[in-house]
Amino acid sequence: MLLPALVSIIYGESPFHFLAVILLLAAAGGGLLLLKPVNTRIFAKEGFLSVALSWIAMSLFGALPFVFSGEIPRFVDAVFETVSGFTTTGASILTDIEGMSKGCLFWRSLTHWIGGMGVLVFVMAVLPMANSRGMRILRAEMPGPSVGKLVPSIRKTALILYVIYIALTVLEVVFLLFGGMSLLDSLVHAMSTAGTGGFSLRSLSIGYYDSAYIDGVITVFMMLFGVNFNLFFLIVTGKAVIALKSEELRWYLCIIVFSGVVIALNIMHMYGGLLKAMRFSFFQVASIVSTTGFATADFDKWPELSKALLVALMFVGGCAGSTGGSVKVSRVIILFKAVKREITHLLRPHAVTVVKLEGKTVDDSTVSSSFLFFFVYIVVVLSGTVVAALDGADFTTAFTASLSCVANVGPGLAGVGPMGGFAPFSAFTKLVLSLSMLMGRLEIFPMIILFSPQLWRKK
Amino acid sequence: MLLPALVSIIYGESPFHFLAVILLLAAAGGGLLLLKPVNTRIFAKEGFLSVALSWIAMSLFGALPFVFSGEIPRFVDAVFETVSGFTTTGASILTDIEGMSKGCLFWRSLTHWIGGMGVLVFVMAVLPMANSRGMRILRAEMPGPSVGKLVPSIRKTALILYVIYIALTVLEVVFLLFGGMSLLDSLVHAMSTAGTGGFSLRSLSIGYYDSAYIDGVITVFMMLFGVNFNLFFLIVTGKAVIALKSEELRWYLCIIVFSGVVIALNIMHMYGGLLKAMRFSFFQVASIVSTTGFATADFDKWPELSKALLVALMFVGGCAGSTGGSVKVSRVIILFKAVKREITHLLRPHAVTVVKLEGKTVDDSTVSSSFLFFFVYIVVVLSGTVVAALDGADFTTAFTASLSCVANVGPGLAGVGPMGGFAPFSAFTKLVLSLSMLMGRLEIFPMIILFSPQLWRKK
Repeated sequence: MLLPALVSIIYGESPFHFLAVILLLAAAGGGLLLLKPVNTRIFAKEGFLSVALSWIAMSLFGALPFVFSGEIPRFVDAVFETVSGFTTTGASILTDIEGMSKGCLFWRSLTHWIGGMGVLVFVMAVLPMANSRGMRILRAEMPGPSVGKLVPSIRKTALILYVIYIALTVLEVVFLLFGGMSLLDSLVHAMSTAGTGGFSLRSLSIGYYDSAYIDGVITVFMMLFGVNFNLFFLIVTGKAVIALKSEELRWYLCIIVFSGVVIALNIMHMYGGLLKAMRFSFFQVASIVSTTGFATADFDKWPELSKALLVALMFVGGCAGSTGGSVKVSRVIILFKAVKREITHLLRPHAVTVVKLEGKTVDDSTVSSSFLFFFVYIVVVLSGTVVAALDGADFTTAFTASLSCVANVGPGLAGVGPMGGFAPFSAFTKLVLSLSMLMGRLEIFPMIILFSPQLWRKK
Repeated sequence: MLLPALVSIIYGESPFHFLAVILLLAAAGGGLLLLKPVNTRIFAKEGFLSVALSWIAMSLFGALPFVFSGEIPRFVDAVFETVSGFTTTGASILTDIEGMSKGCLFWRSLTHWIGGMGVLVFVMAVLPMANSRGMRILRAEMPGPSVGKLVPSIRKTALILYVIYIALTVLEVVFLLFGGMSLLDSLVHAMSTAGTGGFSLRSLSIGYYDSAYIDGVITVFMMLFGVNFNLFFLIVTGKAVIALKSEELRWYLCIIVFSGVVIALNIMHMYGGLLKAMRFSFFQVASIVSTTGFATADFDKWPELSKALLVALMFVGGCAGSTGGSVKVSRVIILFKAVKREITHLLRPHAVTVVKLEGKTVDDSTVSSSFLFFFVYIVVVLSGTVVAALDGADFTTAFTASLSCVANVGPGLAGVGPMGGFAPFSAFTKLVLSLSMLMGRLEIFPMIILFSPQLWRKK
């Protein structure tokens, strides 16, 4: 919070709400240091619990500057906004973004940047930690069906990931500055892109700048941050050929190109030409697939086919090991390949078949847990839909609001379209959707386990 | 088709379109008899193929009376209506039901009645067939994660199922006659209820009769036809105690009571009292859960919560081994129990846990295939949504039209609400949704396999 405090000072705003929370956190942290743990061993249970509670604590404390500054007076609204920030969703309850202080807007996008890579991964990069403990936390925070270490040391893996992350973010800032964006605007939008979050400084999102260059830069970076970071590591270490052969990458690009072209053809009549239509369609497709949620157009006004396709893309999301959310491309590939295997099995019951990804056999437990994940994902989407409907939201609004939160996208259709927002929902719905966002970001189980009676039962 | 021809004659209409199709079918059947099969062995492949092709052939020939009579002039519309009939969906392209001939309306509901129990099961009850061959077909036509034989003989099992089916249908006719409905109306609505289809003689569906008694009778019978027929067999053979202990039955009733009460409270202000609200809410809940699709009110005008709940119920459906469609209650129970097992497994990796249903262990392959089924189900729903959106249908219409077809319910929300219909869709969308209905009715795989290149590949 020192960074947004600095931004506040630079822009002549009061930094006291940030400094107050810093003091509060220092006091709370100091107090906790006095507690000596009886047992420092971390099993699966403790791992999940640490991750879930850390993210909740972060969100609660992260909401305080908004409340203390009076810019988001209601605590539940501030919590929603902060959860949306850390989970890199980008769903907002703000109705007047331009009226907010620069410090708070910077903090809002900084939460995206922090949440994108995972706070605990960051902590691991900085603090020395036992390998086994760290791996559990890395697994819980890093999305996708399976996460490997890049190098034998977990600490070094976390460090490498962060260096790549910082380098790409800085690169985007440079590109945006080059396009005539101010430093603050560039920083904020680069952080929001990096985390695949979607908070902007502007009510019109990226549409405000009305620049083909800026749209192009952000389209490319949204796509990049939706790619598995392991591939960047491979490229940096001179193994670009292996990286470019990635099956997940190829499907990810196929999905983007296919949807981009279909939508461009569908909206062409609105933009008077295929080229301009492609600028808008590819921006939006990259934004939705990477689960960023930026907009350059009010896609809620696009033809129904484009809208339905964008909603369908929300069920896919970015690559595993990226900052993107939702089901993840590699998981979707595994699911479809398992269906193909089932068909083979039905036709030739004695054939021995395995599901392969990136040339390696995917073990049955990963296949099963991918299906299980998908089922729970849909249950969470439908439950959120019913809760949002409680507030009287129409089906399209309720369904896409719920889906968009779980998928960590941000905007949906109708009432929660790119020009709409989450402000009208009740406090209860906002809390439920906050939970949905956390579930989406942590791939559901750490959050479900928190509510499981089994966790709290004495042995 | 002799039955609807008879109805036509009784009502003074021309029966020639039925007689023409009867002659056509006799000729085609006679021709096929001349072909002597080289190989009569049925493996899994042939089983799936038989079922898929039979249902398609039935639908194509079943559509002819509508076309020949000129009452549904376009063949694709007639096919949609007939597929909707045989699959017991009840989605309709008709805009003027009262303007149709009695013969055609009778035929329309007769397709529900035939499709409900499965045509091939009917054939098995009548024709002698080898046990192993029959079992494959019974499995493919009877819905649910696992189907058992009631008695050692497959033919007797099919026969018993049909006797129960006929007895319940006759019982409903008697109850409806008692409520002042005409014989034709009673027959048509009883057949539509039995198949959990939903075609009515009236544009206003059951709302036309405006009778609490008739609403009550149909509510109870819709619920009954959504119950596993094995339970009726147990009751008839004096094992009612075992039947009433059924876990699936209890969840089925819980879902109906819970949703019925919530919706009644939600719509109370529209009907001026809880009792009247309960009449409408329980009718609609029973109609959706059993996937019948009858309506006594335009539930598209109900508050959003009620609508969202009804849509959520479409993902559940009736019990396994009933004439109801969708995912089936027992499969939903298995899915949730498997999630619970996963949580236990995550918290205590060494605990040995199994999924149990009705006191018996569900083997892992059934659990896996339930998850797989659910995934493919959602993929089919989303694909149908995108196709329906091609025609410019808004998201709510497109999504609920697709879901309602796959779930074999019939009506959805907005454009395809109980007072709307499927007439405005393009021929392409109607064909895709027809495929969706067949997928839903045959639990997806026989239809997918038909399009699998693996099926057509030479060994």
